[in-house]
Amino acid sequence: MKRVRILKPVLVSNQQRARENRTFFDQMGSLVINIIASPGAGKTSFITNLVKRMKNTHRILVVEGDIKGKIDSQIISRLGIDVIQINTATECHLDAFMTAQILPEIRKRYDLILVENVGNLVCPAEFEIGEDYKLAILSTPEGDDKPLKYPLLFHLSRVVVFNKCDLLPYVDFSIDRAKKSIRKENPKALIFKVSAKTGEGFGEVIAHIEKEINARKKKNQH
Amino acid sequence: MKRVRILKPVLVSNQQRARENRTFFDQMGSLVINIIASPGAGKTSFITNLVKRMKNTHRILVVEGDIKGKIDSQIISRLGIDVIQINTATECHLDAFMTAQILPEIRKRYDLILVENVGNLVCPAEFEIGEDYKLAILSTPEGDDKPLKYPLLFHLSRVVVFNKCDLLPYVDFSIDRAKKSIRKENPKALIFKVSAKTGEGFGEVIAHIEKEINARKKKNQH
Repeated sequence: MKRVRILKPVLVSNQQRARENRTFFDQMGSLVINIIASPGAGKTSFITNLVKRMKNTHRILVVEGDIKGKIDSQIISRLGIDVIQINTATECHLDAFMTAQILPEIRKRYDLILVENVGNLVCPAEFEIGEDYKLAILSTPEGDDKPLKYPLLFHLSRVVVFNKCDLLPYVDFSIDRAKKSIRKENPKALIFKVSAKTGEGFGEVIAHIEKEINARKKKNQH
Repeated sequence: MKRVRILKPVLVSNQQRARENRTFFDQMGSLVINIIASPGAGKTSFITNLVKRMKNTHRILVVEGDIKGKIDSQIISRLGIDVIQINTATECHLDAFMTAQILPEIRKRYDLILVENVGNLVCPAEFEIGEDYKLAILSTPEGDDKPLKYPLLFHLSRVVVFNKCDLLPYVDFSIDRAKKSIRKENPKALIFKVSAKTGEGFGEVIAHIEKEINARKKKNQH
């Protein structure tokens, strides 16, 4: 019980800092998506697919959150767009304070900021960073029971993407069962099916993101 | 920095409590394996394979750690062995205190206690529970770069199991690259390859576990 008492003020001040980050992103007119998934669910290859298809028409920044290293930033920076790496050292998630540290580095107006959180289905869901919304990726080899076992993330995510759909013939994953579990936690979730390997399904995801970017732009014009 | 100061005493007393758990398990003569992996890496199906092959010759207890629910305990209990469920509520890992709560429930001498930790590659590695050793599972769809990105777990695990080897033809995972990354963190790690789906490779894992069980029995006789 002692630990709960400690955690509470940290979370409260994280929310305060997240609101300040949000104000900054609003002023910049950037749509910020907080991408959360298990290790190896395909966050980086999902982002790679979006960047390749959107970089000629949109100004994109990718923020990479990792415990250690810069493997993913190097992959993304080869695509010729701006990347910022945050190393969390021992923390298993990004929080609003770590995210605040990158704000002085943001000197351009980006249409879209894609934040790749640390690979983890639990803690990243608990810490707002100032995002517009959370996007959860669930890869088919992980199994369709994950929304039942890690309900908070699926409850809080506006968008859920099923990745590695090319592996559906080889794994025990029912799209219907997974959808039902998600709808139970989150009836309004937008659900997409993709394969970051084959590129299948990205048209729909990009149409959704472009709609969100345009909605934000209109909001900023008023 | 405030959070680091808070975390330290919690970790210290966790270690103390882990040592007390260890004393209990020693007295019971039980080999305790702390099984850690990402969500969906196949922890439960790995345990199912071990239990099916070992339950007629060994007394086995399975401890299931989950945020919420009892999906996995129900799967395991159908195998006809004892199972205890720990629900961590918001915590993303088991710790020594949660594990201590189950000790009064252990009234038999088990040869082997398999603890399935919460699906997460980060925090479970930081909290000892009184185990003999940690066993990390890395499933091939997660990618061979995970030991570089989540080094602590692979540094601390005596055993690493590559699971879902039946998917090797369909995913980008090099056994050699993965082994090299693990050896870099942990030159002495024992590495096994299995498929919990086909049952391939379990003979070697079981031979290793039986050796450990026998070593513990001999130690207890002295």
